[in-house]
Amino acid sequence: MKAVLYRGARHLGIEERDAQPPGRGQVRIAVAYTGICGTDLHIFHGDMDARVGAPAIIGHEMSGRIAAVGEGVTGWSVGRAVTVMPTRSCGRCPACRRGHSHICHAMDFLGIDSPGAMQSFWNVPAELVLPLPEELPLDHAALVEPVAVAVHDVRRANVSADQQVVVVGGGPVGVLIAVVAARQGARVLLVEPDPVRRAVAGELGIDAVDPTASDVVALVNDRTGGAGADVAFEVSGSAAGVGTAVDVLTTRGRLVLVAIHPQPRPVDLHRFFWRELELLGTRLYQRDDMVEAIRLVASGAIPVRRLISRVEPVEAVGAAFEALESGGVMKVLVDLREEAR
Amino acid sequence: MKAVLYRGARHLGIEERDAQPPGRGQVRIAVAYTGICGTDLHIFHGDMDARVGAPAIIGHEMSGRIAAVGEGVTGWSVGRAVTVMPTRSCGRCPACRRGHSHICHAMDFLGIDSPGAMQSFWNVPAELVLPLPEELPLDHAALVEPVAVAVHDVRRANVSADQQVVVVGGGPVGVLIAVVAARQGARVLLVEPDPVRRAVAGELGIDAVDPTASDVVALVNDRTGGAGADVAFEVSGSAAGVGTAVDVLTTRGRLVLVAIHPQPRPVDLHRFFWRELELLGTRLYQRDDMVEAIRLVASGAIPVRRLISRVEPVEAVGAAFEALESGGVMKVLVDLREEAR
Repeated sequence: MKAVLYRGARHLGIEERDAQPPGRGQVRIAVAYTGICGTDLHIFHGDMDARVGAPAIIGHEMSGRIAAVGEGVTGWSVGRAVTVMPTRSCGRCPACRRGHSHICHAMDFLGIDSPGAMQSFWNVPAELVLPLPEELPLDHAALVEPVAVAVHDVRRANVSADQQVVVVGGGPVGVLIAVVAARQGARVLLVEPDPVRRAVAGELGIDAVDPTASDVVALVNDRTGGAGADVAFEVSGSAAGVGTAVDVLTTRGRLVLVAIHPQPRPVDLHRFFWRELELLGTRLYQRDDMVEAIRLVASGAIPVRRLISRVEPVEAVGAAFEALESGGVMKVLVDLREEAR
Repeated sequence: MKAVLYRGARHLGIEERDAQPPGRGQVRIAVAYTGICGTDLHIFHGDMDARVGAPAIIGHEMSGRIAAVGEGVTGWSVGRAVTVMPTRSCGRCPACRRGHSHICHAMDFLGIDSPGAMQSFWNVPAELVLPLPEELPLDHAALVEPVAVAVHDVRRANVSADQQVVVVGGGPVGVLIAVVAARQGARVLLVEPDPVRRAVAGELGIDAVDPTASDVVALVNDRTGGAGADVAFEVSGSAAGVGTAVDVLTTRGRLVLVAIHPQPRPVDLHRFFWRELELLGTRLYQRDDMVEAIRLVASGAIPVRRLISRVEPVEAVGAAFEALESGGVMKVLVDLREEAR
C-alpha cells in the first residue's frame, strides 16, 4: 500500500508499506479519494509542526470502502462505501461534559493528531465510520466533510428564509455555506476577489461580488432598504474580511466566524455595542451535521461535482498541494484507489 | 429655575431661567436628583461635541415629581413621583421596524440629543415618564436608569442559576450587573483594580478581585474545575479588559460587551473559533427593563444607597464632575430640588 508522509515544511514523501490489520474496535478502509483542505495546506507549510509530529500521514476529508473488520466490531461488512468523521473526543473534559464533545479540549483529530487518510488502507475506530449510499460516487463523497462544516455553520447561525446573508470568502467552505444557506431560503451574496471562485459560485446559483471592484456595504444596504445583512459568515481569514463582515450587519445581526485567524484582529467593538451585534465562533461539526451532509450530497441538493477542480493520482500529491496553494482552484482530491493503478 | 449648561470642553455654566410651560403631550417635571454617568463625563471632556451642540443641558439619570401636565396628556397628576426613560425612538428605521426600537438608528436621547435633566424643571414627552412608588426615596430613584442597563445586560446574557459569571470593571454599571446576576443565582466574580470600588462591591456581597495582584484566569479556572466562566461582562472599556473577558470563558461561553470602546480592539478571534465563543453587544434598555429596575430598587433587592458616593447641590456641579473623574467614587448625584435652596 501507498502512504503519503509529511516529513517537514514543503516536504512530502510517498512510501510503499505493508497494510496492517485493523485493531480491536477498528475497521480497515480502502481509501478511494482524500481531499486537501486549508488545514492540510497549513501543515504542508510547516505552520502546525508543534502539533503534527513529522513524519505523519495527514488527510481527513475522504471516502472509501470497508476492507476488513477488526475484532469486536459489528454492523459493518467488507465492501460497504463509507466516510469517516475524523474527530475523536475524550468524554471527560469540560467541553465534553457540557455536551460540546465536537470541540473537545483533548480532541484526537485524525489526520492531524494521529494517522490520516492519505494512505491506501486506513485503520480507524469503527464508531467514527458513517455509511454512504451506494449511488453516491466516491469522488463526490470526499466532500462530505467540508459540507458538514457548512451545515454546522449555517445551523449555528440560525439562518431562516428571506434573511439576507453575506458570505465573505469564496473557497470551498465559503461556497458550501452559501449553497446551504440559499437552500434554506436566504438571499445570499458571496464576497470573493478570485474570478475563478466567483465563476464556480455562479455555476451553483450563488450571486458573487468582487470586493476590490464593488462597495460591498453599499450594495448590501441597497438590497436591504438600508437595514443591512442578518447574518455574515467570515470565511476569508483576513483582517479586511472581518471588517466587511462587521460593517454589513443590520441591528442585532450575527457574524459567524468560520475562518482561522492566527493573530488577534482589530475589531470595531463600538459597532457591536451600538447595533447589539453578535459574534459566534464556529468550529467543525457534530455527527448530525455529517449525516445531513451525506443526505445533501447524495440527493444532489449540493452539486459538489462543480467544486472538484482536479483529481491527482497519489504519485502526484506534491502537484496537488502546489495547485491548491497557487490559487484559482476549489477542491483538489488525491486518488488513492489501489485498483486505479 | 436653575439649568446647568454645557458650554464646551470642561466648561459648565449655571443659568437662572424662567420655567417654560409643558407643550402638548408633555409633562413638566420638578427634577429632584440627576446622576452623572460616564457618558456625561465624555460630554464634559468635549469628546461628543459633534453630537451635543453646545450650549446644551445634559443629564439623563433622574428622579422628580410631576409639576404640570400639558395639553392632551391624561393619567398624570401633579406631585406624582416619576423617572424618565430618556430614549425616544423614531418608529420607522430598520431597527424600529425589526422590534429593536430601544437602539433606534435615529434615536433622540434626552440629555444628549435634546435638553436633559440638569435643570430644576424639565419638559418631557409624557410617554417617556414612568411612575415611582411613593416609598422610594428620590435620591435612590435617580439610579433606576443605570439599574435598567444592568437588567438589560443580564437578560441579554441569559444568565442562569449556578453559572459562573465574571464582571470586568467595577464602576456603577459593573457592580449593578454583578448584583443583578447574583440575584439570579449565578456565582459572580468582579474584576476591578480600584480598592474603593472593590470595597463597595464587597459591601453589596460581591466577591471582587484586583487584576493587578491576582491571575484572574487561573482563579476562574480554579473555581470551575478548569472549565472557565459561562458569561463574562466587559464593562471596563479597556483593551486589557477585553482580553481578560475572552480568556476566562468556557467552551460556548458568552462575552457581553457593555462598555464603549471608541477604537477597534485587538480580539483573539482564534479563541472564539476554537471554543465556539459568543460575543453579544448590548446597549441601553427597553421599557420592561426600566419597570423591572424600579421594582428592584423599590423593593430593596438592590441597595443602591451604597452606590451613592456624593450628592452635590447644583451650584457645585463642577465639583461633582471633578469628583467623578478623579476616581475612587461610585455614583455622584446633583441635587436640583428647588425646595432644597
